Amino acid sequence: MDIKQFQERFNLYFENESLLKQAFMHTSYVNEHRDQSLEDNERLEFLGDAVLELAVSQYLFRQYPHMSEGELTKFRANIVCEPSLEQFNRQLSLGQYLLLGKGEEVSGGRERSAILADAFEALMGAIYLDKGFTTALAFLEENIFPSIEPGAFSHVMDYKSKLQEKMQKKGQNVSYQIIDEQGPDHNREFIAGVFLNHNKIGEGRGRSKKEAEQEAAKEALQQTD
Amino acid sequence: MDIKQFQERFNLYFENESLLKQAFMHTSYVNEHRDQSLEDNERLEFLGDAVLELAVSQYLFRQYPHMSEGELTKFRANIVCEPSLEQFNRQLSLGQYLLLGKGEEVSGGRERSAILADAFEALMGAIYLDKGFTTALAFLEENIFPSIEPGAFSHVMDYKSKLQEKMQKKGQNVSYQIIDEQGPDHNREFIAGVFLNHNKIGEGRGRSKKEAEQEAAKEALQQTD
Repeated sequence: MDIKQFQERFNLYFENESLLKQAFMHTSYVNEHRDQSLEDNERLEFLGDAVLELAVSQYLFRQYPHMSEGELTKFRANIVCEPSLEQFNRQLSLGQYLLLGKGEEVSGGRERSAILADAFEALMGAIYLDKGFTTALAFLEENIFPSIEPGAFSHVMDYKSKLQEKMQKKGQNVSYQIIDEQGPDHNREFIAGVFLNHNKIGEGRGRSKKEAEQEAAKEALQQTD
Repeated sequence: MDIKQFQERFNLYFENESLLKQAFMHTSYVNEHRDQSLEDNERLEFLGDAVLELAVSQYLFRQYPHMSEGELTKFRANIVCEPSLEQFNRQLSLGQYLLLGKGEEVSGGRERSAILADAFEALMGAIYLDKGFTTALAFLEENIFPSIEPGAFSHVMDYKSKLQEKMQKKGQNVSYQIIDEQGPDHNREFIAGVFLNHNKIGEGRGRSKKEAEQEAAKEALQQTD
């Protein structure tokens, strides 16, 4: 991997550069280089998982002062999970730094969800060991948290699915429409309606279309029986 | 609760003393004091759980350099779990600070495992919010980690370290060797042997070399005396 390029790109310079390299070292690479005494990224992944848990927890705790402990726990589980971690890895194009064995490379390992998710966790472990929790948190605040919006993790409080399920039992189908947009581009608010046979059965607003639709579905759920 | 006594006892002085109080505030107490706008300790518990996860992870990571990721994960789960957290609470006699509703008090809430475990987590959340991760870690290093010994959690063990210790007492040294590999690259299984003076004294298999070696050490421990 290009350690120099990584460090310049993220303006993050390691005291111990071998930790950074280890974060991207898949076990298949270590197995193919027995002559060198290398260590794969699995232990760093263990540590990084906990770094992520705490960083995400404190972010959610501050961001959602009215969420209950139960909701926070569900939300966190939906952020610190393989599909989300894979997505974070892809967002930052970290796949390019992976060190894979030849077999793993040929069989598409560089695109494998688990490998991408694990490497993201391992990177957090490496940053924590080399620079401490505050730097690990700052890295996430700069690169990851801005993409965590209520809409992006709507499966957590997924009212749309709940409404669809309820309606399908009655043989009915709802549809959504954005009925208004307000505010300047950088601070847009959307108003969504959910319709049943052209009758509006719910309305909601949000910072993204997804969020507005979720809110509309939530209202419809409260008003239908 | 006696906030002053707590702070003097642990030499830990809060900027925001109401956070400390909140850590010990059970929901039953809040329910009986609706006139005051109090918040129970459940959100702090959510945060404290993650503080504990990271603190314990980094402790185990450094303490057991030969443990595989899988073993570390098991070990951590056995420390950050209700029975252990209850035990930590009792070790520090924190039950005295609990704020309970009358009904909960009468029915023995001050001795209930879940309430004690949750309050311990909430306390970690409060320390983290008021003083940061480093202070929360220092609190655990001083008050809790010394009681986390292999013996106390012997269901999860670093067999390699244990075998090494045993052998060194006899002035002997063991070595490990991967004696076979099976399966395709992305789903490899390793077979490790542990040797004493070229005699194999144990064999084990695992998904990583480390895991196989641990299993080999485990067998050797059972077979040597």
